[in-house]
Amino acid sequence: MSVKTMEDLFVATLKDIYYAEKQILKALPGMISKADNADLKKALETHLGETEGQVERIEKVFKLVEVPARGKKCDAIEGIIDEAKEHMSEIKDERVLDAGIISSAQAVEHYEICRYGTLIEWANDLGHSEAAKLLEQNLKEERHADTLLTEIARGSVNKDAQQAA
Amino acid sequence: MSVKTMEDLFVATLKDIYYAEKQILKALPGMISKADNADLKKALETHLGETEGQVERIEKVFKLVEVPARGKKCDAIEGIIDEAKEHMSEIKDERVLDAGIISSAQAVEHYEICRYGTLIEWANDLGHSEAAKLLEQNLKEERHADTLLTEIARGSVNKDAQQAA
Repeated sequence: MSVKTMEDLFVATLKDIYYAEKQILKALPGMISKADNADLKKALETHLGETEGQVERIEKVFKLVEVPARGKKCDAIEGIIDEAKEHMSEIKDERVLDAGIISSAQAVEHYEICRYGTLIEWANDLGHSEAAKLLEQNLKEERHADTLLTEIARGSVNKDAQQAA
Repeated sequence: MSVKTMEDLFVATLKDIYYAEKQILKALPGMISKADNADLKKALETHLGETEGQVERIEKVFKLVEVPARGKKCDAIEGIIDEAKEHMSEIKDERVLDAGIISSAQAVEHYEICRYGTLIEWANDLGHSEAAKLLEQNLKEERHADTLLTEIARGSVNKDAQQAA
């Protein structure tokens, strides 16, 4: 694939985050089933629902820029998810596992926060203000999910995990 | 590798970021040589120097927790860097390439920001306050690098890149 203009780069990055969100949709149920802390489980379940809505918003953005909604393999999210799975398989104690799940989920969130931040800048530069608004809604949800995970870690998970010996 | 306690999880994540920083040390010169905008080139060069210092700080943290400084293959950073290289190879126009380099560099920064944030929380929980202080210095540099890249993008790079047709 050749990227010649900023419009091309915007579309290429949109395909990247579209693929990433779909991979996250596949990965989240495994994280939810392994999570033990009730608040964590609930936060991940809520985020699974949000992610479905985010995929739909990205599809609307594709429509706005008149490009067929298609993902493009994203090595970054593949690596982040592979690492999350590997970390989960290494941890036996369910309290430490919860802390590990939060850490992995936040790595996913940060990847998305970064990509949405970039896409919003470019969308505004390119005059795609409707697209920018949709992407801003996704960014807001990702930031909220990240903050909530920090609160859950600080509230109980990290303290409980200290008990594992 | 088996992770039983929060101390184990802290060390495993320290090995992950140690490996990641070393991969970034290898990847940055390629990004610097491809960058055209003078401010961007300078920012990446400064960050290369900072990264060398960050590796040394991580080595000090290993010493503080009495574990040999050894990296652990980090699929996440491998994926993020592979994707950066792929994006760079797809872009021909040097102005669009600068915008793409900033996007890729910010994906790297966000990964590090996330991991340092987690490590600092855990270091404080585990009573490793000296380690936490060293990791906070790294986090501060990563945040500053990320903010600077946004400023460079907004200042000139994204505007110049719009001219590519």
